[in-house]
Amino acid sequence: MRILGIDPGYAIVGFGFVDKIGSQLVPVQYGCIQTKAHTDPSIRLMDIYDSLIQLIDKYKPDAAAIEQLYFNRNVTTAIAVGQARGVLMLACKQKGLEIGEYTPLQIKQATVGYGKAEKKQVQDMVKMFLSLSEIPKPDDVADALAIAICHAHSSTLQTKLQNNLTRRGM
Amino acid sequence: MRILGIDPGYAIVGFGFVDKIGSQLVPVQYGCIQTKAHTDPSIRLMDIYDSLIQLIDKYKPDAAAIEQLYFNRNVTTAIAVGQARGVLMLACKQKGLEIGEYTPLQIKQATVGYGKAEKKQVQDMVKMFLSLSEIPKPDDVADALAIAICHAHSSTLQTKLQNNLTRRGM
Repeated sequence: MRILGIDPGYAIVGFGFVDKIGSQLVPVQYGCIQTKAHTDPSIRLMDIYDSLIQLIDKYKPDAAAIEQLYFNRNVTTAIAVGQARGVLMLACKQKGLEIGEYTPLQIKQATVGYGKAEKKQVQDMVKMFLSLSEIPKPDDVADALAIAICHAHSSTLQTKLQNNLTRRGM
Repeated sequence: MRILGIDPGYAIVGFGFVDKIGSQLVPVQYGCIQTKAHTDPSIRLMDIYDSLIQLIDKYKPDAAAIEQLYFNRNVTTAIAVGQARGVLMLACKQKGLEIGEYTPLQIKQATVGYGKAEKKQVQDMVKMFLSLSEIPKPDDVADALAIAICHAHSSTLQTKLQNNLTRRGM
């Protein structure tokens, strides 16, 4: 199963394709989509959409996972990133992908093991899980890979749960 | 010139197509796109996108105008409406439409004449400008028509300004 992890953003969208082969996680491709400041907002949104469509066509994932947005204060940023997240979800759905949505807490729990982990700890676990020689840069890329790992672990859990229920005849 | 006015929303998107013929404004079609609560968010976003694409294909506007979002408190709503606004802007841009963005203040100024006008005053002016027998319901539809009127008035102003500059040889 190939998972596309997405860290939504307006200036930078992190992405990471990860193959789940048995209990192994193998990185396929990762990087970021960048849009230029001071450009027409609708052009930036179209660039984000077009870039993701091209990536999905090229790497043909089976599922997508995207971070839930949380903003405490900056509502203007929330709207801008919300707009970008909207076109990213649209692209995934149009390409027939089911989309897993995960909170920062869930992502930390799935990678480090507890919800209050620091960013650096998540990045170290991304490096370890994917046997990378270094932490991918910028942070958005490491975050996208963490989201893909979170989805891989969640689906493993779900499969185990289903198998247990089936074994018990439930 | 045919203008598509859009009042962005997640559960309800208001839309209104208005023809500007000389100084006259003629309503062509107006209504709203509705999405169901408790439905997968990506399905709701795809419904909004698909519906707007169909409307643009049918009514072939020359330009689009959309309200700028302002939220003071509810960041969760801001993100949801931001996502919807993102796919609406994408649909317009993909169909080759230039998109005017207007603040609530600008919309009130362009319809009623001052920025602190009440919602009811804006609705009354929409009814008057478009020679409607009653105020369109729900509010989102009247808002979308107000945005289209705002864009019509702004483009009239811009044309006048350009003509003046040309006359003066500037």
